[in-house]
Amino acid sequence: MTWLRAATGLARHAARRAALARAATPGHAGARSAGFHTSALRRRAAAPAPRAVPLSRLTDSFLDGTSSVYLEELQRAWEADPASVDESWDNFFRNFLGQAAGSPGAGLSGQTIQESMQLLLLVRAYQVNGHMKAALDPLGLDDRAVPEDLDLALYGFTEADLDREFFLGVWMMAGFLSENRPVLTLREILGKLERAYCGPIGFEYMHIPDRDKCNWLREKIETVAPREYPKDRRLVMLDRLIWSTQFENFLATKWATAKRFGLEGGETLIPGMKEMFDRSADLGVENIVIGMPHRGRLNVLGNVVRKPLSQIFSEFAGGTRPVEGEDGLYTGTGDVKYHLGTSYDRPTRGGKRIHLSLVANPSHLEAVDPVVIGKTRAKQFYSNDDDRTKNMGILIHGDGSFAGQGVVYETLHLSALPNYTTGGTIHIVVNNQVAFTTDPRAGRSSQYCTDVAKAVNVPIFHVNGDDLEAVVRVCELAAEWRQTFHSDVVVDLICYRRFGHNEIDEPSFTQPKMYQVIKNHPSSLKLYEQKLLETGEVTKEDVQRIHDKVNRILNEEFAKSKDYVPNKRDWLSAYWTGFKSPEQISRVRNTGVKPEVLKRVGQAITTLPESFKPHRAVKKIFEQRAAMIESGEGIDWAVAEALAFAALIVEGNHVRLSGQDVERGTFSHRHSVVHDQETGAKYCPLDHVVMNQNEELFTVSNR
Amino acid sequence: MTWLRAATGLARHAARRAALARAATPGHAGARSAGFHTSALRRRAAAPAPRAVPLSRLTDSFLDGTSSVYLEELQRAWEADPASVDESWDNFFRNFLGQAAGSPGAGLSGQTIQESMQLLLLVRAYQVNGHMKAALDPLGLDDRAVPEDLDLALYGFTEADLDREFFLGVWMMAGFLSENRPVLTLREILGKLERAYCGPIGFEYMHIPDRDKCNWLREKIETVAPREYPKDRRLVMLDRLIWSTQFENFLATKWATAKRFGLEGGETLIPGMKEMFDRSADLGVENIVIGMPHRGRLNVLGNVVRKPLSQIFSEFAGGTRPVEGEDGLYTGTGDVKYHLGTSYDRPTRGGKRIHLSLVANPSHLEAVDPVVIGKTRAKQFYSNDDDRTKNMGILIHGDGSFAGQGVVYETLHLSALPNYTTGGTIHIVVNNQVAFTTDPRAGRSSQYCTDVAKAVNVPIFHVNGDDLEAVVRVCELAAEWRQTFHSDVVVDLICYRRFGHNEIDEPSFTQPKMYQVIKNHPSSLKLYEQKLLETGEVTKEDVQRIHDKVNRILNEEFAKSKDYVPNKRDWLSAYWTGFKSPEQISRVRNTGVKPEVLKRVGQAITTLPESFKPHRAVKKIFEQRAAMIESGEGIDWAVAEALAFAALIVEGNHVRLSGQDVERGTFSHRHSVVHDQETGAKYCPLDHVVMNQNEELFTVSNR
Repeated sequence: MTWLRAATGLARHAARRAALARAATPGHAGARSAGFHTSALRRRAAAPAPRAVPLSRLTDSFLDGTSSVYLEELQRAWEADPASVDESWDNFFRNFLGQAAGSPGAGLSGQTIQESMQLLLLVRAYQVNGHMKAALDPLGLDDRAVPEDLDLALYGFTEADLDREFFLGVWMMAGFLSENRPVLTLREILGKLERAYCGPIGFEYMHIPDRDKCNWLREKIETVAPREYPKDRRLVMLDRLIWSTQFENFLATKWATAKRFGLEGGETLIPGMKEMFDRSADLGVENIVIGMPHRGRLNVLGNVVRKPLSQIFSEFAGGTRPVEGEDGLYTGTGDVKYHLGTSYDRPTRGGKRIHLSLVANPSHLEAVDPVVIGKTRAKQFYSNDDDRTKNMGILIHGDGSFAGQGVVYETLHLSALPNYTTGGTIHIVVNNQVAFTTDPRAGRSSQYCTDVAKAVNVPIFHVNGDDLEAVVRVCELAAEWRQTFHSDVVVDLICYRRFGHNEIDEPSFTQPKMYQVIKNHPSSLKLYEQKLLETGEVTKEDVQRIHDKVNRILNEEFAKSKDYVPNKRDWLSAYWTGFKSPEQISRVRNTGVKPEVLKRVGQAITTLPESFKPHRAVKKIFEQRAAMIESGEGIDWAVAEALAFAALIVEGNHVRLSGQDVERGTFSHRHSVVHDQETGAKYCPLDHVVMNQNEELFTVSNR
Repeated sequence: MTWLRAATGLARHAARRAALARAATPGHAGARSAGFHTSALRRRAAAPAPRAVPLSRLTDSFLDGTSSVYLEELQRAWEADPASVDESWDNFFRNFLGQAAGSPGAGLSGQTIQESMQLLLLVRAYQVNGHMKAALDPLGLDDRAVPEDLDLALYGFTEADLDREFFLGVWMMAGFLSENRPVLTLREILGKLERAYCGPIGFEYMHIPDRDKCNWLREKIETVAPREYPKDRRLVMLDRLIWSTQFENFLATKWATAKRFGLEGGETLIPGMKEMFDRSADLGVENIVIGMPHRGRLNVLGNVVRKPLSQIFSEFAGGTRPVEGEDGLYTGTGDVKYHLGTSYDRPTRGGKRIHLSLVANPSHLEAVDPVVIGKTRAKQFYSNDDDRTKNMGILIHGDGSFAGQGVVYETLHLSALPNYTTGGTIHIVVNNQVAFTTDPRAGRSSQYCTDVAKAVNVPIFHVNGDDLEAVVRVCELAAEWRQTFHSDVVVDLICYRRFGHNEIDEPSFTQPKMYQVIKNHPSSLKLYEQKLLETGEVTKEDVQRIHDKVNRILNEEFAKSKDYVPNKRDWLSAYWTGFKSPEQISRVRNTGVKPEVLKRVGQAITTLPESFKPHRAVKKIFEQRAAMIESGEGIDWAVAEALAFAALIVEGNHVRLSGQDVERGTFSHRHSVVHDQETGAKYCPLDHVVMNQNEELFTVSNR
């Protein structure tokens, strides 16, 4: 038996090399829409390789072209004298090829094993890199090459293998491999992989080192059929998309030359956010703090946070005026309308209520990130949300700023720190595929604008912003992930910007080809209406009815806006009732406390537990401090500071210190956390100022 | 044949679950040093499972405990009536188990296939996560749990399998799988994986999507035996480590109470850098620009950049004084000695010379990153280093700042941009495992301080800083990577800080346990001397001779330092000969050019190619500009600016504009790059001011 023929082996090797070279060229990406990545296969199918040389296919995967010959020579030598080859090759030929050609044992040869292993690598490649082949760009301008490792030819498979059955094993990993189907045809396997990984959603999660998290996601991605939403859900999504779309149209009609940083091209953000919030409420979230840049802000304010439309319209017409409140004069910030924040209690689909607040943003966009996290953490503290499932932060980013600004990285690195975590932030990138006038390729050094999230093991869901139901699916999945794993998650909403950076900016100056395509591209609303009409579930009349309702309300609110009188409630939500007016804040008040209070808390802050073994220098410092408290004389900076903190704590105030080395103090003067020199245990005297003190009431953190 | 017995199957399933649960507990990590991760195996080896039930092992990988029973029932049903089971199961039993029990065909069963696939997953797990088990911490305080996916039990293997041979296939991936050995025992496979991935180096590279890069690294990691350095190389390394160690000792002896931010605990940095530079020079690098923080800076200055030791000592004794130069008075920056920079031409081992410059650093440490990149890029421009192989940037970071500062992320995202790339920066993290007084766990949200590098597909080599030869190996590998792929690479030198943040700081206040260990921990020099003596190649006398030489030179330089007179050359290297003194710079000079020059360049900057199709608004702007040039009247900001740039270019000056939207201009006024509205092609008139203009002479970049 010569199972390996040098001639055919070498010829096929050359063909493989050529196919791989073709696969690496950008033009090759054109084959993507054809389903499997089979262009290389088709070429070879025209001149089918003889099936009589099953192992040859494996051998040309050797790194040099001589290996097929090498293997054949080895086999010949072994057939002549088994002792003439290395022991491992002797074992190989004996065990895996069967000793006699054509024996029944040859049915399952090394080839079969290798094929199964190659297949496993192919499956793994889809799990890792399938997103590179997903149809993510609504404009279809994406010219990414399909990664080499998604090419069947790389694994030695040809088109002739598509209907062969392969043993897939029985796995403890989640996903379709764990289904109770031990054999599948290659075509079935590829079909499942393509549907799961190369549709309108690109999943990046295999960088997460936690097996449970990967299995949870794999289960959601591979085995759950892409959700078919029932008619009532679809009508709600449609209604929300119509609101999103009509809102911008209305503003554009009424104030054609005003800057509003409209959401056109990314309108599915609104239904996506609303579905995300509904799902979050189902899973226990009661409060959401939102941070976001200019783009789409008015739309989010009006349609998600439910700032009264009449008020938004009034601001367009006239701007903000100072307001007389019961306890002083409230002035606007003087900032523009797309910088303002607000808050609202919104009813959710599940029948719950959810409190939404949008934080005011500065022009330096991502600066709002740590503010939102801090506000969320504060809400968790003040509402005793110990498992952090009731209060959640949402950050909306631009693609350019997410890739470009260091504060994004800094904020992500706070996400899992004990003194900073908020139990997971959901990040939504409104990815216009252009930053002001900068192409993505000139703005970052990696494939996606979201790659920084991989540094902190966060899953990333890229989604084609034109596919409303795919957007809703990842928005729901993000909410589920956050409530399950209490970790951050990123939704990369890949859309476009129908107009310029703002409405009076001309984008064709710098992105002419992109804007030629955009000009003729239907809105996501048009596409969704078309999809629903095609199902037959929804009629033209149904659609028109919603349009009419939305238009009517917009016009009513516009009429009301002319008489709109701003009041204090525009600025301050119910949660900020105790917030002082500027006048009250500037009043000089007596902040002193009685000496007996200082004496009492002074003892608390200079006392260490009996059994505690501080460093001897620290022990001496604490003895000196105790003497200062006792005598009331020679009180130094550190003691005065600690007394001030303690007095605040006694009054029930939350005190938080953070920053490099604040626990000990940069100049080794504070020692607010003391370390036992034998056990390494920590003790913080300011945690013990009042009885049963909440351990977070005083927080000191080195980060 | 009942190949699957419910009773034993279920019992083993329960045992597996228990073993996995144990594997997940932190205490389990203690088994790491025993080689393979076999604690679970040993327990089961005590009660060996009957080999007669080969497939049962696979079945307990089902997600619920009932699957073994399920499979057995399925098989019974199939044996009674093949049509009673799902078609895929029928195929499975027919094709993969052989139709008759004990037939020769049963020799290679589904079990064998599944085992090979599981083995492949195990190999892959080591490639991805082996670094988690590597012995990286010189202090041995690292208490990381070994990842579940490095546990043999997870793949259904027991100790009884260790000496069985497995078919590994013939692969086109690089690494030991591609060796010409088709079968290996499980023990051999694990041995190779442990040696490659779990020694003193932890390799992170499987996040890189480029197959060629992964194959290149896998080849280096898996198949090249860890380099055994010859005696002469080892003596050089020893000499360099002695220099590094004695330098700090000497300073500590002479100026016991001075802050110097010594390198103690990380002394292998110096021989590592020197070997990296030697290897880089071999591969064509001629110039290295270095940026680094305080820690170890004096040591790098003295031993790597070769700032004269007498000068360093003089600065310790007296500080810097103003210097009279031939063209003015040069004053020191007033900054402290561990902020200063210098440069030097250093001979390399290969007989070449390499120019080293260390950039002065501010206290805000990572701020130097983009400065080093910019300086490197400038050197590449001025030396026509088109492929960027002759000039290289090196950035040394602290662990806290690498994880904590956004500018690190921002700089990494510049690394592959056409207008910013320098052909790869080598990053070295001097990882003290503490940031000032902050524990790593309080400072970042991911495993390593280097995880941000994964966002830009950069390989990361973690190395135990106590293992000099491992340090040298990764330093050489980093140099090879950079010259091969022109991309960034990170060396994470995991060491410790023998003293406090500086020499007058007490680290036990905040890290008592760590410093108990450090107190008794031998220096890396002691460890290396011991290793060399044990080989018998090197004698005690050899070692002593080097110590004596180094001590003698240090003392000679100290004696010289008393008479040291600073001069201009201390501040300015040969490369900065044309650099103006402060007096010269402040002189007001005539910067005007003749009107005919403006007219001539004015035509160049207002002319677009014949066939070019600009936006009609841009066309009009260019016509207006041409009229301004022609008439010399009504010249606007944009034209005046362009004329200034053009005049500089005519004089041979490099002009570079960068920042958001600078090509068009934020207010759409500049239009320095014009876009063809049909083809999308770009044209930059300022690239055509002089004949055959170097395309980089005028650079404008939106990032």
